[in-house]
Amino acid sequence: MARVAVFSAGSWGTAFGIVLADAGNEVTLWARREDVVTAVNDRHENPDYFPGVELPAGIRATSDPAEALAGAEYVVLSVPSQSLRENLAAWAPLVPEDAVFISLMKGVELGTTKRMSEVIAEVTGAGPERISVVSGPNLAKEIAMREPAASVVACADDAVAKQVQELCHSRAFRPYRSTDVVGCELGGAYKNVVGLCVGMAVGLGFGDNTTASLITRGLAETARLAMKLGADPLTLMGLAGLGDLVATCSSPLSRNRTFGEKLGQGLSVEEIYATTSQVAEGAKSCASILDLARRNGVDAPIAEHVDAVVRGEIGTREMMDAFIARETKAERD
Amino acid sequence: MARVAVFSAGSWGTAFGIVLADAGNEVTLWARREDVVTAVNDRHENPDYFPGVELPAGIRATSDPAEALAGAEYVVLSVPSQSLRENLAAWAPLVPEDAVFISLMKGVELGTTKRMSEVIAEVTGAGPERISVVSGPNLAKEIAMREPAASVVACADDAVAKQVQELCHSRAFRPYRSTDVVGCELGGAYKNVVGLCVGMAVGLGFGDNTTASLITRGLAETARLAMKLGADPLTLMGLAGLGDLVATCSSPLSRNRTFGEKLGQGLSVEEIYATTSQVAEGAKSCASILDLARRNGVDAPIAEHVDAVVRGEIGTREMMDAFIARETKAERD
Repeated sequence: MARVAVFSAGSWGTAFGIVLADAGNEVTLWARREDVVTAVNDRHENPDYFPGVELPAGIRATSDPAEALAGAEYVVLSVPSQSLRENLAAWAPLVPEDAVFISLMKGVELGTTKRMSEVIAEVTGAGPERISVVSGPNLAKEIAMREPAASVVACADDAVAKQVQELCHSRAFRPYRSTDVVGCELGGAYKNVVGLCVGMAVGLGFGDNTTASLITRGLAETARLAMKLGADPLTLMGLAGLGDLVATCSSPLSRNRTFGEKLGQGLSVEEIYATTSQVAEGAKSCASILDLARRNGVDAPIAEHVDAVVRGEIGTREMMDAFIARETKAERD
Repeated sequence: MARVAVFSAGSWGTAFGIVLADAGNEVTLWARREDVVTAVNDRHENPDYFPGVELPAGIRATSDPAEALAGAEYVVLSVPSQSLRENLAAWAPLVPEDAVFISLMKGVELGTTKRMSEVIAEVTGAGPERISVVSGPNLAKEIAMREPAASVVACADDAVAKQVQELCHSRAFRPYRSTDVVGCELGGAYKNVVGLCVGMAVGLGFGDNTTASLITRGLAETARLAMKLGADPLTLMGLAGLGDLVATCSSPLSRNRTFGEKLGQGLSVEEIYATTSQVAEGAKSCASILDLARRNGVDAPIAEHVDAVVRGEIGTREMMDAFIARETKAERD
């Protein structure tokens, strides 16, 4: 049993908090809003994301970062990736010296093209032995419902990966361990972009042959960049690569796929933001992933086209036409 | 333009016949039943599989194998894999000497554990330069509707692969070429077994996290066996491996997934056969794939468990419990 602080009470933070509490830990969930804090503490519920799901007794909430972090042995970070640097700068002085960070975030920072573990290292000064990531086919709602799921816990230090693995091993949640932080993070970030692309195809009315082809290309594109950055190709073939990608691209629960679907149906990015409170990471991260690919000289057609759609430079129909044309070219090469 | 004979007028044979005719070829579809022959020739329709879809003018049908094969430069084979040897023995004497075989079949022969291309070679005496296979994320109904799709054409002789590639390159269907016949055939056969397994999970009520994990394991299991038999791992990462697997496991149009779903809902194999005319290749092939894996000393838990369910030795719930237990074990290894 350990003391774990979770930032913050979004859908995946809350679901992972349930896993941690089910595994026997004492979990403090940080939430910005007092009404969420009250709902968690008084009614054992997070009505924003999982109305009707009873949270385990081991979860408490607070809006005070200092209270959440007091005595924390592990600090779970699950905030929108573009806000991590700013948020963490405020929390870092309160983090106990030896606490291990667990990143649930899936994105690449705009401008710096840093992965989330790199941002954590920069902001907090923590070494690689204090930074772990969790990534896999883990749709938050299914995790909260205790449906069986598997995932990957990665840390450069295998002994720490093992600690985190034990920390979050519940009856329904089974973590595998890895030392390939780069592969896990790239798989997680890229799949949001591919999920957007698949969503667009679905929104336009394309069928399962097309989406399966896009998923196949998306994984190849992810693997190209990840391997260039030192990842193990087997990570991309596994739960944190293929597994996460397939779950995101198959599920109507996926925000990125849903966001893409709305774009495919003809809505603009602004119109979609006006109707949803949830963040589609892929729409934020495609620009930074594309930037990362370009800096490393890696061809990234999916990231490129999704970025152009999100910027409003091309339409979704034009994007699909470009893929089909590209296919002809590739075939003749 | 070439003369192509297609055996037979099932759903994938008919859909691929449409591709070939759209690509400008003269296609003769062999059908056992006279009513199908009449419908194709008089109404340009195959009402059994694609009611309402108008077949191109370049497709004619016959119930006479000799008529279908007279002057054929290419012979497309799309029959249930366990019936190939017997059917082909009857047709082989009628096949023109230099005709190239194109196998659309996805299975492994019971007893011999031969792949379909090996059965073709044995029965007809054709060399590897006369045997090609087509495999990819190609749900027949979507192909018949001319939705854009990509696929792989493989032949040990690259020049022949190129001929077949050109033969079936239509506006909507884009074939890539490969010399990895083993990888394409194993990917195609194994995906039916994994599709059955995913269907069972869906039928039992499991969500997208579970199905994504099964797909991930399924591809790893396929790659292990295929590589042992000399396949290129990149084939399994591509359209004929991952692509075909994802299409089969995602689509309600997939027979194997649908068959599995009914098993998961509690129907027996006999009950399902009583209600459907379509063959679920995976239910036939899981025993031979398992046999092939065992002869090659490859661990194949998905094939093993699906086979046990199809034989009625264990229930689908028991199968899923076994996977979850296995996972714990693997994690602790």
